[in-house]
Amino acid sequence: MNQDYIQPNEWSIIEKDFDYERVKSSESLFSIGNGAMGQRANFEEHYSGEKFQGSYIAGVYYPDKTRVGWWKNGYPEYFAKVLNAPNWIGINVFVNKEALDLNTCKMVKDFERELNMKEGWYKRSFIAEMPNGVEVSVSTTRFLSLTIDELGAIEYTLEVLNSDADVKLIPYLDSGIKNEDSNWDDKFWNTTNVSYKDDRAFIEAYTMKTNFATCTFMQAEAFLEGNRVAATKSEKSENLVSIEFQQALKKNQKVSLVKYGGYTVSRNHKTDNLVKAANTTLDQASKLGYETLLKKQKEAWAEIWEMSDITISGDVKAQQGIRFNIFQLNQTYLGTDSRLNIGPKGFTGEKYGGSTYWDTEAYCLPFYMATKNQTVAWNLLEYRYNHLEKAIENAEKLGFSNGAALYPMVTMNGEECHNEWEITFEEIHRNGAIAFAIYNYYRFTGDYSYIPEMGLEVLIGISRFWHQRANYSKKKKKYVILGVTGPNEYENNVNNNWYTNYLAKWCIQYTLEQLEKVKDGYLVDYDRIVAQTKLTKAETDLWSEVAENMFFPYSKKHEVFLQQDGFLDKELVKVDDLALSERPINQKWSWDRILRSPYIKQADILQGFYLFEDHFSNEELERHFDFYEPFTVHESSLSPCVHSIQAAKLGRMDQAYAFYLRTSRLDLDDYNKEVEEGLHITSMAGTWMSVVEGFGGMRVLDDKLHFTPRIPEQWKSYSFKINFRNRIIKVTVSAKESSFELTGKEEMSIRVNGQRVVLIPGKIVKV
Amino acid sequence: MNQDYIQPNEWSIIEKDFDYERVKSSESLFSIGNGAMGQRANFEEHYSGEKFQGSYIAGVYYPDKTRVGWWKNGYPEYFAKVLNAPNWIGINVFVNKEALDLNTCKMVKDFERELNMKEGWYKRSFIAEMPNGVEVSVSTTRFLSLTIDELGAIEYTLEVLNSDADVKLIPYLDSGIKNEDSNWDDKFWNTTNVSYKDDRAFIEAYTMKTNFATCTFMQAEAFLEGNRVAATKSEKSENLVSIEFQQALKKNQKVSLVKYGGYTVSRNHKTDNLVKAANTTLDQASKLGYETLLKKQKEAWAEIWEMSDITISGDVKAQQGIRFNIFQLNQTYLGTDSRLNIGPKGFTGEKYGGSTYWDTEAYCLPFYMATKNQTVAWNLLEYRYNHLEKAIENAEKLGFSNGAALYPMVTMNGEECHNEWEITFEEIHRNGAIAFAIYNYYRFTGDYSYIPEMGLEVLIGISRFWHQRANYSKKKKKYVILGVTGPNEYENNVNNNWYTNYLAKWCIQYTLEQLEKVKDGYLVDYDRIVAQTKLTKAETDLWSEVAENMFFPYSKKHEVFLQQDGFLDKELVKVDDLALSERPINQKWSWDRILRSPYIKQADILQGFYLFEDHFSNEELERHFDFYEPFTVHESSLSPCVHSIQAAKLGRMDQAYAFYLRTSRLDLDDYNKEVEEGLHITSMAGTWMSVVEGFGGMRVLDDKLHFTPRIPEQWKSYSFKINFRNRIIKVTVSAKESSFELTGKEEMSIRVNGQRVVLIPGKIVKV
Repeated sequence: MNQDYIQPNEWSIIEKDFDYERVKSSESLFSIGNGAMGQRANFEEHYSGEKFQGSYIAGVYYPDKTRVGWWKNGYPEYFAKVLNAPNWIGINVFVNKEALDLNTCKMVKDFERELNMKEGWYKRSFIAEMPNGVEVSVSTTRFLSLTIDELGAIEYTLEVLNSDADVKLIPYLDSGIKNEDSNWDDKFWNTTNVSYKDDRAFIEAYTMKTNFATCTFMQAEAFLEGNRVAATKSEKSENLVSIEFQQALKKNQKVSLVKYGGYTVSRNHKTDNLVKAANTTLDQASKLGYETLLKKQKEAWAEIWEMSDITISGDVKAQQGIRFNIFQLNQTYLGTDSRLNIGPKGFTGEKYGGSTYWDTEAYCLPFYMATKNQTVAWNLLEYRYNHLEKAIENAEKLGFSNGAALYPMVTMNGEECHNEWEITFEEIHRNGAIAFAIYNYYRFTGDYSYIPEMGLEVLIGISRFWHQRANYSKKKKKYVILGVTGPNEYENNVNNNWYTNYLAKWCIQYTLEQLEKVKDGYLVDYDRIVAQTKLTKAETDLWSEVAENMFFPYSKKHEVFLQQDGFLDKELVKVDDLALSERPINQKWSWDRILRSPYIKQADILQGFYLFEDHFSNEELERHFDFYEPFTVHESSLSPCVHSIQAAKLGRMDQAYAFYLRTSRLDLDDYNKEVEEGLHITSMAGTWMSVVEGFGGMRVLDDKLHFTPRIPEQWKSYSFKINFRNRIIKVTVSAKESSFELTGKEEMSIRVNGQRVVLIPGKIVKV
Repeated sequence: MNQDYIQPNEWSIIEKDFDYERVKSSESLFSIGNGAMGQRANFEEHYSGEKFQGSYIAGVYYPDKTRVGWWKNGYPEYFAKVLNAPNWIGINVFVNKEALDLNTCKMVKDFERELNMKEGWYKRSFIAEMPNGVEVSVSTTRFLSLTIDELGAIEYTLEVLNSDADVKLIPYLDSGIKNEDSNWDDKFWNTTNVSYKDDRAFIEAYTMKTNFATCTFMQAEAFLEGNRVAATKSEKSENLVSIEFQQALKKNQKVSLVKYGGYTVSRNHKTDNLVKAANTTLDQASKLGYETLLKKQKEAWAEIWEMSDITISGDVKAQQGIRFNIFQLNQTYLGTDSRLNIGPKGFTGEKYGGSTYWDTEAYCLPFYMATKNQTVAWNLLEYRYNHLEKAIENAEKLGFSNGAALYPMVTMNGEECHNEWEITFEEIHRNGAIAFAIYNYYRFTGDYSYIPEMGLEVLIGISRFWHQRANYSKKKKKYVILGVTGPNEYENNVNNNWYTNYLAKWCIQYTLEQLEKVKDGYLVDYDRIVAQTKLTKAETDLWSEVAENMFFPYSKKHEVFLQQDGFLDKELVKVDDLALSERPINQKWSWDRILRSPYIKQADILQGFYLFEDHFSNEELERHFDFYEPFTVHESSLSPCVHSIQAAKLGRMDQAYAFYLRTSRLDLDDYNKEVEEGLHITSMAGTWMSVVEGFGGMRVLDDKLHFTPRIPEQWKSYSFKINFRNRIIKVTVSAKESSFELTGKEEMSIRVNGQRVVLIPGKIVKV
C-alpha cells in the first residue's frame, strides 16, 4: 500500500517525480482505453528499464496452449488470453545521434504524469540531461478517441534547453510483439504486409490460430515553430515500419510531432479492406486535426460524466477514488457491441487471461444498467445468449445431457478457457449469476422482452444443469450438490455450499415462473422455445422436486446457514487473532492450509444475502454478517464492496466506510502490491455499488425505486445519478438531508426510507 | 486387453510375428535391467517406425521445470524425472549401402522375441527382405550383467540369404537424447568429451542442473566365421561416436558383432575417473568374453530364482504372470544401495517421473523382506531416514514446525517433486505407510535395531506432523483431519478420510510405544534422540490427546466406517449398474464427476483393514468388503492385489483368483491399454503378496510365522519360499495338502491354520 504515490486531486491522477521502481505500476494506473482498444502508459520513446509493454484490442485474443501438471478429462485445449497487440505509440528519439532513454539519462527532473479523467487524456512531461550532456524538455499528450474508436493521437514535443542539437524523431509501428505471460513462447502474430506511403504507414498482421486480421496504422506530422517539417526517410523491415524526421534545433527551439495511430480489425471490416479503412480513419483524423479531436474527446467524456459521475465533497481521496473507478469502467467497456465483454484487467494487463467472468453479471451489470442506456445491459445479456450453444457443449464435455448448460468460468468466445479442476469444473455458481442477471435486468429496466426473446432459453439450459448436478442423498433425505467451489475460492470441492445450493433452487424456481409468464403473455415465443428445447411437464416436475427439496446446511447452535457441510469442523480462529505476519494468507500459506482454514476470500453466504436480500430479515443478515465477516480476509478485490453494502445496510457506517476505501482506492493505493500487473476493473463496478446501493441504499422493490440514504461522517455530501427506466434521478445526500431531482417529462414516485416521495421534473425534493 | 499377444510359456516371454503397432508395447514388455540400469527393448539397428527409445541409469534424474496452470504456494520448483540416458545399444546396419530398417523392409518373417526370465537375457531374430532385394537373417541377444552391473553385452549376427552383399555394421554411442516427456524441450545432457581408441569409444556427459557425470562406453568386436574382422574406421561428432566394420559377405555367410557397453557414473566413481573406470570394466568384460559373461548371468539369475521363485502348476498363464512380476522386480531393484529406490515404472518408461512413492513401503517392502537378505529391507528403510531432514523442510514449507516431517509424495532425492495440490499437499497418508514399514520390518525380521538407530527419529517427525495436522472440532468434540486425499484418489480434499485418520492415530500410538521401548532398552540412543528432537512429556501428552480422541466417521445404518465424512451423501450406484461404455471412468468422465461419484480407485478402508487386520474381526472385514468393493473400479494397478488378499481371507476363492489374474497379467495382457508407456513395477510386488499372503495366508503374528493355505481350483499346486529371520521355508500347496520344508540348522515352529507345526531342517512336513 502506498498512499503518497498518487497526488490527491478531484479529477486527475497525478504522479510527480520519476521513480524507476514505479514505472510498471504507473503504466497500469495511467492506462487509457476507449472500449475498442486500450493500452498501458508505456513511454513513446525507448525505455531500457523495467517495463511492461501492453496494447490491447477488444475481442482479439489468442488460444495459448494450456500449461498444467497433469491433465484432467474435460479440460479445455487452450487458455485464451487477451492478446498483446502491435505497438503503434512508439517514437524513437535521437539527440545528436544518442537515443533518449529515461533509464540512462544523467538527470531527470520535473517529471510529471497526469491522467485527466474529466477530459480523457494522458500527459507526461519531464526535463532530462542525456548522457551526451544535452538537456531536453519533453511533453507528450495522448488519448484514444471516443468519437473515432479505431483512432488514438499523440502530440510529442521536445525542446533542447542548453545547446543547439540535431534531433531525430522516428515514429514507428512494431508487430514483433509477444505476450508477457505467453505459456510456450509461441509467436502470436503473423505479419503479412508492411508498407508506407508519404506520412502514413501500415502493418497488416493476423493472429495465429484465431485469424483475427488487423491493420496497425499511423500518420505522422512534425512541426518546427508551427511549420511542417518534411520526413527525411521511411524504412521498413519484417515487423517494423518507421518514418524519420530529422531537424537541427537551436537552443530553446521546439520540435513537435503529431502521431495518429490505431487499429482497423476484421471484426469491423472485411479483411482485405483493412488498409483502406485505416486510410479512411486517418483521412478523418487529418481533416479534423489534433486540436479538434482533443476537443471532441473532452465533449465525449463530459457526456459520460454527465450521467455517471459521483461527487463526494469533503474527502478528496474518496472523490478521486470513485472517479478513477468510473473512468476505468468506461475506458474498458462502453456497451455498444454485444460481442465484447469486460475483462477483469480491462486493457491494462494480461493476468486472468480471458475476458469474461461472472464478475460481469454479478458486479458490472448494475453499474452499466444505471449509468447507460439500457441497450448496454441488453448487450451484456445477449453476449451470454449468443454463447448458449457453447455452454451446452461445455456441459456435455462434463457428462451432462439434454441441453443442460454450464457457462464457462472464463471465456473469450463462449468456450471455457481456464483449467484448474476446482474452478473450471466446480465453481459452478457462475451459472446462477448469469440467471440472476436476467432477473436483475427485468427488475431494474422493467423491460421483459429479453426473457421471451432470449433469456428463457438460457434459463432452461441453466435449470437443466442444476437439476442434473444435484443428487438425492438418502442420508439427508434431501437433494445435495456435492463437490463444488463457492465464491469463496479458499474452500474447494466442498459439499452443499449454501450459496450454490440457494442459487440452484432459485434458478429453477425462477425459470418455472418465467415459463408460466411467457406461456401466458408470449405464446409464439413459448411454443418456439418448447419446441426447440423439447421441454416437458415431466421434466419440469423433476426440476421442482429438486428445488423444493434442496438441502441447506444450518447450524442451530449459531443460528446461521453454514457455508458448506464441513464448516463447523474447522478451527474457528478469527482473522483478528491471526498474526499479521501470516497475511495475506494467499501469499504466506500453502493451499491445503488455506483450504482447511476457516478463512473466507470473499463474500459467500453474504453474497447470497446481497443478491436475495428480500428473502431474509435484517436480523438474519446481522447474524450472518457477525458470524462470517470475522473469518473473511477480503483477499479478493470483489469482497470489500459487498461487505460495505451490507455494513451500510446494518447502519455500521464506520465499517462500511473502511470497506469502501479499500475497494475504491485498491489500485491507486496499491493495497495488494500488484498494481503493476494491471488494474482490477470488474471490482470497480463494486465500488460504484457501494456508493449507490450501500450508502445511497438504492433498491428496486415491487417495481419501485427505493433509497435509504446514509453518509459516512468523513463526507460532507455526495451525489450520483440513476437512469431508472429512462428517467434520470439525481440523488444528493448530506448528513442533514437527501435531495432528489428528476429529469424528464412525467412525474414519478419513489420511496425514501420507506416513505413515498413524488418527484416532479425539474424540482428538487428534499427529504 | 490382449490375451494372445504373448505366448504362454513358463519361463519365457515370447512374441511371434512382427507387428508395427506393437513395437512400443513390446519395447516395454521385453525391457531388461540389472538394478543399476535398465532399458526398453529398442532395436539395435535403426528403426524409422513408431518407437519409444529409453535407457535409464538408476539414481540419475533431471529436475525438469514443472508445468502447471496456476501456481500454489508450497509447490516444488521442479518435477524430477527419471532421465533418458545416452544410447549405447545402437548398431547401424547397411547392406549394399542401404540401411536395414524393419519399418521399410519389403517383408519380415520368422520374427521372434524372447525374454528368458530364467537366465536373464533378451533375444530377437527375424528374416527380412530389404528394399534392395537382399534377404538377411538377423539374430541378436542382449543382457545387462548382474555380475558387473555397469555392463551390458550384445551379440548381433547377420547372414545374407539370397546373394552376396557388402555389409557394414556400425556400433555407436549417442548422447543426443531427450526425454519423451520433457516439459520444456530443455536439453538434459551436456556432452563434454567424445573419444575413441582402437575398438573402444566413450562419451562423457553430465546432466544439466543435477550434474550427474557419466561415461557411456562401448567396445566392439566383429567376427566372420570365427575370425576377427578389423574396424574400417571410427568417427565422432558432438554427441556421437561410432566404429565401422565393413565386410563383403558371400551368400549364406554370417558376420557377427559383440558389443559391450554401459555406463560408469559419478555416484560410484570420481568424475575424472569415469573413462578409466569404463576401461577397467571393459578389460574385465574382454577378459571374460561374451560366453562366460552370459554363463555368469545365468548363474546369477539362478541364484535369484532359487530364493524368489513361485511355481504354479496347472496354469501356464498364471505361472508366466507371477514369474514376469518377480523377474521385473529383480530387474528394477536389488537392494544393494540405500541411495536407490523403486520407481513405479522401473527402467521401462518415464511416466510418474520420480522414483519413490509410498508404493515402496506399502507394496514392495514385504516382497524384498521375504525373498532377500534383510539388509535389502534395511536399505529401503534407511533411504527414508536419510531423507528425514528434507521431509522436515517439506513440512515447513506447508506451515508445520517443530520438526514435523511430511515425506514427499514423489521424490528422487527427498524433495517433493510432484505438484497437484490435492496430491502433493493432501495425500498425506503416505507418511503413515513409512511409519508402518518400520513396524513391519521389525515384525517380520525381528531386528529391532533399526528403531533406536534411525527409525524412532522418523517416527517422531511423522507423529509431530499428525499432531499438528489434526484439529479439534468443537462440533464433533473430537480431533478431525480436514482436507485430505486418501489412497482413493477419486476423492479429493475430503474430511476425515478413515484410512488417514486411522493411520494418524496408529502412528502416534506406535511412536509412543517405541519411545518407551527405546528408553527401556537403548538409553544412549534414547538420550541422543530426545536431545536432538527436544521432545518433552508435554508434547507427547498432546499427541496422546489427539490420538485418543481421533474422529472416525461411521454409519450405524450400514455398520461400516465411512471412507470420509460425506460418503453417504453420494449417489450410491454400484459399479455393476454402471454402463460398460462409461468405464474406465478416468478416461470417460471429467474429474468433478469422478469426485462426486461413489467410485473408488483402489482399496482405501480395505487398505487399512489390510495393514491392521488384527485390529478387526473377520465379520467386520466382510461387512466392509461387501459395502465398498461394489463401488471399487480398480483403476489403480495397486487395487486388485489387496482385494485378492482380502477375498482369499474371506474364503471367496473365485473372486480372489479373478483379482489375482488381473494383477499378475496386468502388463502381459495389457488390461489398461497403456503398456507401451512402461510396466507397472511396484504393483508387481502386490502380485507376489496375493500369492504368499492371499493364497498362502502367510502372516506374522506374535513373532510367529502363520499360514492359512488356500488354492484356486484352477491350479494343481503352487509353491513359494520365505526367508523368515534367516530361515528359508519352502511352502507347497495343493488342494489336498500343504507341505513345508525348512532349510537351515535349527528346527522352528510355525502355525498352519492356527495349529502349531514343528519344522525340522530337511524334512518335509505335510499338513
